[in-house]
Amino acid sequence: MKSVAILLSGRGSNFLALSDAIERGEIPARIALVISNIESAPGLQHAKDRGYKGLFIPSKGRDREEFDREVVAELQKERVDVICLAGFMRLLSSYFVSQYPTCIINIHPSLLPAFPGLESQKQALEWGVKTTGCTVHFVDEELDHGPIIVQRSVPVLDDDDAEALSHRILEQEHKAYPEALKLICEDRIKIEGRRAWIVGG
Amino acid sequence: MKSVAILLSGRGSNFLALSDAIERGEIPARIALVISNIESAPGLQHAKDRGYKGLFIPSKGRDREEFDREVVAELQKERVDVICLAGFMRLLSSYFVSQYPTCIINIHPSLLPAFPGLESQKQALEWGVKTTGCTVHFVDEELDHGPIIVQRSVPVLDDDDAEALSHRILEQEHKAYPEALKLICEDRIKIEGRRAWIVGG
Repeated sequence: MKSVAILLSGRGSNFLALSDAIERGEIPARIALVISNIESAPGLQHAKDRGYKGLFIPSKGRDREEFDREVVAELQKERVDVICLAGFMRLLSSYFVSQYPTCIINIHPSLLPAFPGLESQKQALEWGVKTTGCTVHFVDEELDHGPIIVQRSVPVLDDDDAEALSHRILEQEHKAYPEALKLICEDRIKIEGRRAWIVGG
Repeated sequence: MKSVAILLSGRGSNFLALSDAIERGEIPARIALVISNIESAPGLQHAKDRGYKGLFIPSKGRDREEFDREVVAELQKERVDVICLAGFMRLLSSYFVSQYPTCIINIHPSLLPAFPGLESQKQALEWGVKTTGCTVHFVDEELDHGPIIVQRSVPVLDDDDAEALSHRILEQEHKAYPEALKLICEDRIKIEGRRAWIVGG
């Protein structure tokens, strides 16, 4: 049974999808802690409503590593094994990443390496792609860059705007993220270079 | 009925897929001309075997625009409407592109903008993506860059090597390319900025 922390900055819809899958017994994990760097994040309130330990750790105006050290201290206190970024709008410091090698995962609303960074759905529409999707990946020090665990593709429709496309991608995110976390909590991911392989099962 | 030319440098498997679809009556087009810049290209022999006009126009050691002017002269002689690049290993000059604006299409074995250029399948494996695919796009002066007409996604499997992945992508290329050419020959593609829309039908 892995001990999981969720880091978020917003509504936390991916946190809810992970929490649902864990509560249904689909993932051998328990949520030990939910941390938000935004006090008013709806995801933080959802966490408390569901009875999880929810912490607000302010990031605004603070040095990245100072913030990260406070977060890591809380994670260590709870003996967290796996950290899921779920709409957490901060790049992690190398200190943070080095404390949890291949234990931090993130979800991104594009088929990486296409459209990293902000507003991926808008980028995809502007590029005129017909297929996009979402990516669950390990976090390293580069933005949207670490080894990929799961990707799911999504069609772009001719009349899509960013909102419609985001909604269609989000439906797949809510499947891809629990799928990836399950593989990790079952120790079924092996990494070689940039490739993450599924073993056993 | 559109008059189509195929430009190739190798085996021409996408040329055969297009030719098959045209011969089955699925695309309102006729193949007026097949041009290869490589004399020994199997695709050129296939063209002749199928009774098409096949031309070898050497490119080796020649100035790009000199070669392109000779190709364009042959295309004009046959009153070609649409040009399909099918494994044609040359970047087109701005002269060539300007003669056939939004009339030249290409197929690329990745979900562009990911993995442009050579050995896309190897690039995809090295990046560790779980989803790749193929892209049919209009050709502009930049490499693998013009507006996208069709994309199809393909899973990457854990035990894939470049050959196995290329084969799986190629199966989708042979569907995507006829699909895109059909839309073009039916005048059903409208371009706005980088986005290509399907109209009518």
